[in-house]
Amino acid sequence: MRQVVMYGPGDVRVEERDDPQIVEPTDAVIRVSATCICGSDLWPYRAAEPVDHQVMGHEYVGVVEQIGSQVRTVSVGDFVVGSFWASDNTCEICRAGYQSHCVHRVPMGMIGTQSELARIPLADGTLVATPGMPDADLVPSLLAASDVLGTGWFAAVAAEAGPGKTVAVVGDGAVGLLAVLAASRLGAERIIAVSRHADRQALAREFGATEIVEERGDAGVDRVKELTDGLGAHSVIEAVGTQEAMMQAIASTRPGGHVGFVGVSHDVAIPGDALFMSGVHLHGGPAPVRQYLPELVQLIWDRTIDPGKVFDLTLPLDQAADGYQAMDERTAIKVLLKP
Amino acid sequence: MRQVVMYGPGDVRVEERDDPQIVEPTDAVIRVSATCICGSDLWPYRAAEPVDHQVMGHEYVGVVEQIGSQVRTVSVGDFVVGSFWASDNTCEICRAGYQSHCVHRVPMGMIGTQSELARIPLADGTLVATPGMPDADLVPSLLAASDVLGTGWFAAVAAEAGPGKTVAVVGDGAVGLLAVLAASRLGAERIIAVSRHADRQALAREFGATEIVEERGDAGVDRVKELTDGLGAHSVIEAVGTQEAMMQAIASTRPGGHVGFVGVSHDVAIPGDALFMSGVHLHGGPAPVRQYLPELVQLIWDRTIDPGKVFDLTLPLDQAADGYQAMDERTAIKVLLKP
Repeated sequence: MRQVVMYGPGDVRVEERDDPQIVEPTDAVIRVSATCICGSDLWPYRAAEPVDHQVMGHEYVGVVEQIGSQVRTVSVGDFVVGSFWASDNTCEICRAGYQSHCVHRVPMGMIGTQSELARIPLADGTLVATPGMPDADLVPSLLAASDVLGTGWFAAVAAEAGPGKTVAVVGDGAVGLLAVLAASRLGAERIIAVSRHADRQALAREFGATEIVEERGDAGVDRVKELTDGLGAHSVIEAVGTQEAMMQAIASTRPGGHVGFVGVSHDVAIPGDALFMSGVHLHGGPAPVRQYLPELVQLIWDRTIDPGKVFDLTLPLDQAADGYQAMDERTAIKVLLKP
Repeated sequence: MRQVVMYGPGDVRVEERDDPQIVEPTDAVIRVSATCICGSDLWPYRAAEPVDHQVMGHEYVGVVEQIGSQVRTVSVGDFVVGSFWASDNTCEICRAGYQSHCVHRVPMGMIGTQSELARIPLADGTLVATPGMPDADLVPSLLAASDVLGTGWFAAVAAEAGPGKTVAVVGDGAVGLLAVLAASRLGAERIIAVSRHADRQALAREFGATEIVEERGDAGVDRVKELTDGLGAHSVIEAVGTQEAMMQAIASTRPGGHVGFVGVSHDVAIPGDALFMSGVHLHGGPAPVRQYLPELVQLIWDRTIDPGKVFDLTLPLDQAADGYQAMDERTAIKVLLKP
């Protein structure tokens, strides 16, 4: 099969690899219908994380081709959506809603889903079958559910977005934009999107943003405070992963408010005294997307939400390198790859 | 009147100062019945914070001597308990339960309550009158409510201690010990106190601790994990304020669990990647003690709880220097001063 491999920073290739096989009786193998490039894939691409001949990708939808002898809840031929952590969905941590920290979790990024086929460990716990074969136009949205939508949703839940709340979203990548959508669905009264790109501002407004702030850092904090009687937002979502974004998020939140952070942290150190004096709640990390998948798949199936709009470039898998370049140069928000 | 002044690190004196006067029509002046030395007072005493001829103290109970023209809810002769932040209790932040971040807050530590008399700004918002004049044996417990009990209570609430939860408490000072009491009152199933001092372990057990862990740092984390099926505690309270204690607290918490931190942060920097991967909730800061005062005063008045046990040394105000020394050398957990 064909699979994307990052040889080193900036060096993405598609090469022939052995087809995956059932290894454990709880595995499934799926034929990938669509996969995509994640903002987090750009960290190694930009040499901000080490990388050496690494298979890539952790977002996927597809059709089950094989199942192990102990798989019960998905069948060959099912169209399925999974998350970037395989999880058993039965352990105490999963049952508490934190499947991304499952005691038996397997990172899909180590298996790689930018490929024609993929082995899915713990298939019963990991995969959610759609009600039937989706129409082609639903596939991008279902793919979004596997990471960026689920991550944005978790961020909005972690930030306690809801009725009566003013929510600010720091980060206008796919996750930030879908956090806007999530905050809107969760009933937030006002949603302030922080973005300086006209195309992303437009999508943020389409997803439910009521205000746009273009300033970043301290100026961005001041602007959010101006918009909130000097108090700060009730709920702030951090969807970048840098020191500046994290501190902007904390400082934009009123005392007692909630920061939901889902940007993968890089060289971030939160000063204890600033956090102490802020009085905010801080929660985040790898999103337990699996918790939200049944609900998100249904919202997409019913055409209530259209998160697939974040994909503004679709390429064949063989042109993955062009996709990485487009996201690196920010000429695309998010790239869908078709195996 | 007599008042404690810290001339510099390690140099505590009691000197004659002008009696406080009503400045704002919302002020009250109280005659202090009892005050005490806070763990946070040791930071400047140990030169970990700058200090120069600073009046000291922010914990107090006493009898109202004068009120300003706009004070409505307390009267001359009332016995009152207040918190270490004066707050209006009417602003949007106060109404959300975060009186320690009141938009009009005044830090009592800048006024100093290790004194015979003290001016209390925003008296209506700040002070809670007891049902009558308390018996002498209730005074230490009422004094504890003004900071250490209220702070421990907030820490337990922030850590979401409650039925079915295993709670770990890092820090065996007065706040940590009273966080044990709070977790117990909130219905926690198991309470693990981290302490290596026999007298403090005994008090922790009296307040409701079910297990003791003597190890600190990584060894302490391992021990808490051993006691919790390898998962970590649901709720962890950090009541120290150091890097080691904060990281021990985060690492002792299971994914999706809650850390309540109330140790005043000193030279703490939380690595973003460790926090991200931990999946915990983090909340803390200066406790909104005022929120809990009516409930805590009633529990004390009814003799349901006896937080005053944390005071293991009582001295006249004039011997404040001896009290600082005893706490610095850890020969006393907490020192009550009688003006």
